[in-house]
Amino acid sequence: MMLKEYVRDIQDFPKKGILFKDITPLLASPEATNVCLQKLTEKLKNVKIDKVVGVESRGFFFGTLLAHELQAGFVPVRKAGKLPFTTVSASYELEYGTDTLEIHADAIQKGDKVLVHDDVLATGGTIKAVCELVEALGGEIVQVSFLMELLFLNGGDKIKAYDRFAVMEY
Amino acid sequence: MMLKEYVRDIQDFPKKGILFKDITPLLASPEATNVCLQKLTEKLKNVKIDKVVGVESRGFFFGTLLAHELQAGFVPVRKAGKLPFTTVSASYELEYGTDTLEIHADAIQKGDKVLVHDDVLATGGTIKAVCELVEALGGEIVQVSFLMELLFLNGGDKIKAYDRFAVMEY
Repeated sequence: MMLKEYVRDIQDFPKKGILFKDITPLLASPEATNVCLQKLTEKLKNVKIDKVVGVESRGFFFGTLLAHELQAGFVPVRKAGKLPFTTVSASYELEYGTDTLEIHADAIQKGDKVLVHDDVLATGGTIKAVCELVEALGGEIVQVSFLMELLFLNGGDKIKAYDRFAVMEY
Repeated sequence: MMLKEYVRDIQDFPKKGILFKDITPLLASPEATNVCLQKLTEKLKNVKIDKVVGVESRGFFFGTLLAHELQAGFVPVRKAGKLPFTTVSASYELEYGTDTLEIHADAIQKGDKVLVHDDVLATGGTIKAVCELVEALGGEIVQVSFLMELLFLNGGDKIKAYDRFAVMEY
């Protein structure tokens, strides 16, 4: 199966100059979704994972599937103000200004083995902040996984400390 | 299993006077998630479902799991401006003002059998707008399902036309 045929290029989204990778055709195909899920989990079947952390909101799609497949708990990381309970937060730089992500303070227990997941690794700012949140709560990051890594943006440099896997590379 | 023990009440979130039902403890438990997923799918195992529509963003959690379990396509309905391809939109009333939801125009084919899913049925405004989007694209709604229905808000009145199921009622 040519998985990349299920990813649609959208020019100038969300703004001019950005070539957006639209994964909705992939999500609409149970067969393509199965293949991605299999690739994302094949090296993890015999690894203990307590929690899968998914990043709002496209990281929720395969994040929940991964948690279910591995029979781990699912933990959402969300934009500031969306999580209702006590949170821990981390800020990261955007092109202009900063953004803030939050995780529930009770979502990860000290020593939990954690798989961190998002749909795309671009510049890496978001995922670095997510990893900081997980470690602030005492979680041990087993792997950081993505559907896609945009190699030309060198986001991997920001998360060199972790095992990293992407189903597709561009 | 007492599923309601995995739902945490949060007073005055997102604003004063609202008792928010926090499902993150449920998501953090693979066992509780399994039970919910089993209840959500047990009547659908022999029913043809082409697409599962999940509503941004808490509807994405079980929406993706349902699609995978039923081997249907997953279709996200999102807030205005988040979906990159051609969209169809519907607005609905909030307490003050309106909000807009969008679906990709190619996400549902005419005659598709659709399961619509969100985490909570409250006043029903959101889910009614989602059902309108699905039907605008020619989809046939087989069921509208929720993790929770807040019976005292009578949201069910807005979606009387459809089969409705909720794992938990309050």
